[in-house]
Amino acid sequence: MADLLSQSPSSRRGFLRKSAALAIALPSAAELLSGCAEGKASKPPASVDHAMPAPAPAPVLSARAKADAMDAMHEMGVKAFPAKTQGRGNQLFQPRMQGGVKVYDLTCSEVEWEVEPGRTVKAWAYNGQVPGPQIRVREGDRVRVNLKNELPQSTAVHFHGLELANAMDGVPFVTQPPIKPGESFSYEFVVPNSGSHMYHSHHNAAYQVGMGLLGAFIVEPKDARNEPKVDVDQVMILNDTMHGYTLNGKSFPATEPLVAKLGQTVRIRFMNEGMMIHPMHLHGMHMTVIAKDGWDQPAPWKCDTLNIAPGERWDVIVKATNPGTWAFHCHILPHAESEHGMLGMVTALVVQPVNA
Amino acid sequence: MADLLSQSPSSRRGFLRKSAALAIALPSAAELLSGCAEGKASKPPASVDHAMPAPAPAPVLSARAKADAMDAMHEMGVKAFPAKTQGRGNQLFQPRMQGGVKVYDLTCSEVEWEVEPGRTVKAWAYNGQVPGPQIRVREGDRVRVNLKNELPQSTAVHFHGLELANAMDGVPFVTQPPIKPGESFSYEFVVPNSGSHMYHSHHNAAYQVGMGLLGAFIVEPKDARNEPKVDVDQVMILNDTMHGYTLNGKSFPATEPLVAKLGQTVRIRFMNEGMMIHPMHLHGMHMTVIAKDGWDQPAPWKCDTLNIAPGERWDVIVKATNPGTWAFHCHILPHAESEHGMLGMVTALVVQPVNA
Amino acid sequence: MADLLSQSPSSRRGFLRKSAALAIALPSAAELLSGCAEGKASKPPASVDHAMPAPAPAPVLSARAKADAMDAMHEMGVKAFPAKTQGRGNQLFQPRMQGGVKVYDLTCSEVEWEVEPGRTVKAWAYNGQVPGPQIRVREGDRVRVNLKNELPQSTAVHFHGLELANAMDGVPFVTQPPIKPGESFSYEFVVPNSGSHMYHSHHNAAYQVGMGLLGAFIVEPKDARNEPKVDVDQVMILNDTMHGYTLNGKSFPATEPLVAKLGQTVRIRFMNEGMMIHPMHLHGMHMTVIAKDGWDQPAPWKCDTLNIAPGERWDVIVKATNPGTWAFHCHILPHAESEHGMLGMVTALVVQPVNA
Repeated sequence: MADLLSQSPSSRRGFLRKSAALAIALPSAAELLSGCAEGKASKPPASVDHAMPAPAPAPVLSARAKADAMDAMHEMGVKAFPAKTQGRGNQLFQPRMQGGVKVYDLTCSEVEWEVEPGRTVKAWAYNGQVPGPQIRVREGDRVRVNLKNELPQSTAVHFHGLELANAMDGVPFVTQPPIKPGESFSYEFVVPNSGSHMYHSHHNAAYQVGMGLLGAFIVEPKDARNEPKVDVDQVMILNDTMHGYTLNGKSFPATEPLVAKLGQTVRIRFMNEGMMIHPMHLHGMHMTVIAKDGWDQPAPWKCDTLNIAPGERWDVIVKATNPGTWAFHCHILPHAESEHGMLGMVTALVVQPVNA
Repeated sequence: MADLLSQSPSSRRGFLRKSAALAIALPSAAELLSGCAEGKASKPPASVDHAMPAPAPAPVLSARAKADAMDAMHEMGVKAFPAKTQGRGNQLFQPRMQGGVKVYDLTCSEVEWEVEPGRTVKAWAYNGQVPGPQIRVREGDRVRVNLKNELPQSTAVHFHGLELANAMDGVPFVTQPPIKPGESFSYEFVVPNSGSHMYHSHHNAAYQVGMGLLGAFIVEPKDARNEPKVDVDQVMILNDTMHGYTLNGKSFPATEPLVAKLGQTVRIRFMNEGMMIHPMHLHGMHMTVIAKDGWDQPAPWKCDTLNIAPGERWDVIVKATNPGTWAFHCHILPHAESEHGMLGMVTALVVQPVNA
Repeated sequence: MADLLSQSPSSRRGFLRKSAALAIALPSAAELLSGCAEGKASKPPASVDHAMPAPAPAPVLSARAKADAMDAMHEMGVKAFPAKTQGRGNQLFQPRMQGGVKVYDLTCSEVEWEVEPGRTVKAWAYNGQVPGPQIRVREGDRVRVNLKNELPQSTAVHFHGLELANAMDGVPFVTQPPIKPGESFSYEFVVPNSGSHMYHSHHNAAYQVGMGLLGAFIVEPKDARNEPKVDVDQVMILNDTMHGYTLNGKSFPATEPLVAKLGQTVRIRFMNEGMMIHPMHLHGMHMTVIAKDGWDQPAPWKCDTLNIAPGERWDVIVKATNPGTWAFHCHILPHAESEHGMLGMVTALVVQPVNA
């Protein structure tokens, strides 16, 4: 992980090759480990198909050998981080300008999404990304979002946190008709309030949001004088449904690290699009909580573990004062680790020397 | 839903009639919908008994027909809101005065409770209501609560949040003997502290509270000068146990909307009597959090999604500045929607034009 | 419970004897109780082995007899509190001084741990305690923690909340190699920040922390002028995994009460080492929240129900103004009570008369 920013595409193939090798070398190690009831569902060991004669009776592993086998799985996960996968969500969305309007063309469709190396799932995505592309505008901007529905179900987009006119709120049969398969709909509005918001499906939403129809909608304030000056500004969307435990659509070791130089200031915009709380714990440094759902906290407060509930957004500031690679994970431990190593909602904050 | 406040009793019959008709017209639509694993337990489709010959093989529905069938279920739920049901909880409780004491006579017994149209469950209720009748007094009032137990189990009443003398705290074998079936007990006290509190069973409470033995106990402060002036003051009790996901004892579409004129101020007193957290999300406007468990927050803060844990009460203020009918729901999405439409912990804030 | 502080060791034997007697007198009472689906797994009734002839058909109990049987189980639990058990966790750890360094020798090993009378489980413990011994130092102290691993798995210690140098952070393969079975490792650092922190395993942690590898790490500030003056300062570690619902490693009725004289000030340091939230509710008095994760809250606020998520620490102050024995429990009710009586995450705050 020391070289985590210099990983080449070949690293992933190496990871998979080593993984398969280990599975063959230690075919029954996982089963032999004691106390392994937790976390199996999250990251099952790779199954190995091989037409081989019946194996000889498994040798009894010593405690040390069992510990070594478990440690090897842990090491492999850490060494693979950040693992390369196909597809990247939450990419900054450049609008096209049309008569002073920022226009965002979104198409929702079913795609294959690689959550971590070798685990590819069906996803419902905006423009092929999970999370959808990051919309970032300024308070007072005129915005048009053209949604084209290429899914087999009707859908609609709710701009979660924006105080729009009722007709733009995106709730079928309450504020608009559902957007049928093959059809389109345009949302247009002047952005009314700043902060860290979201856009997501509001139709059959437990399913459609769970499948990936979600993204960040960031609004910079018109008057930026009170905005904290930051060097790094990163969105972290938590999810826990059909695609497992993910940060920005990926599971460890395919999650993306946050990287800062020593002394820099990092802003993290947490957003929970899942169905469970996730108390995110940062090692080595604390977080100062400055906003909730896009509204400034009147009295910012500090913590190292921030509980984020579904639908909430929390903005925090981290001063990168402590050099090193720091674990950063959900503290509901089965969302972060099993006997097979770290998994799911784990990433790292990497604080680099100034001259690195 | 445009005419949501003019629903007549016949609407419900119409709802059920349409429901049955749809069930016959689209008997297999639900099963044919793709990706429908979520939420079925919360709101099963109505079963249809009919002595009919074996049906012909179901035709294969096109994607569009499947989408239309799902949308029809969603539309039906929204159009039925607010659906009429038998029984209404949380009704303001007028005490009888006896020598300067406000006397509340409560009887707990087993009743039938209609949670949503056509879904009637066994409930344990105070005075036949779920939640029990709303007690609303002033700090310093002398209050007597006479409990008569007509249930098959012993019980006791805890006044959750009130700082009473120990003997009035309602915990069997700690502060009093249990109140046996057929017996009565009187609680009497001078109300010591203001705020949004609750009363509920504290005996076999996971079961008894889950079955409905709970209600709001609101205490207005003696010195009301710091109280916000509000036009609407509404209690919203969340529950998630034996009766499903409910707001004030009812599931969508039988939940009650909040209604305000444009420009009015609404106070909502959230209370969680369930076993899960519920992050309540308001569309179109934000909430200002002013009190926790009846105690003023020293620095009120804003949000659009408020996470409410079991036993907590949160008071918020909403300025009704945005006209329209706004969804208002738990953001753990399976508590609010399935492929069959909105369900459970969904209601609306209706902001009406001033001259309506 | 009036005599709860004068319980002799014989009380426990008496508890068990009475328990067996009741089980024989009312062999089928539990099954006969109506509506008893909740909570059974948490505290199964003691099984009674007896070679006896087949019993006569169980008589039909009247509602009153069933209520009495349930009440008797509730009474027995309350009367047994605080029940004596083998072993006590969270004991203050006296360091040995070595050249100006406070040295703490920790050995982790598998032990038998009595969670409540008659329920003994396998635990992984630091120095035989669950939670491990309480480390309490001052900001700026030089500390060495020598860990000896006598477990069958590798391990490592993370000092959760302390902003240490990266090499001391305790995350295998990120900051250090795992500490293999039979091996040792020394952590050494100058304590960088004050507050209520924790130490626990960070290797296969969902399992190892769940089994008991956790403890409190309290750091008093160098400048104590802003510290609240308190008469009682108590740690309360919440857990909910392999050992059931526990407070400081014990389940009700074996939990330890908090005891204060009328007028005294109590500081409670809540820490959640489990996998679920626990909203802790205090009866009779409120709590003032002064710190989160060891950091002062800029605007302390009041509540009676405090929601504590995994990994979080919250410090509160309670003024013991209301005399009596007050229930103090998680308000997720199945974590605190079943038809068999109170269980799990229940304790009491006992406010004694000044001259007691």
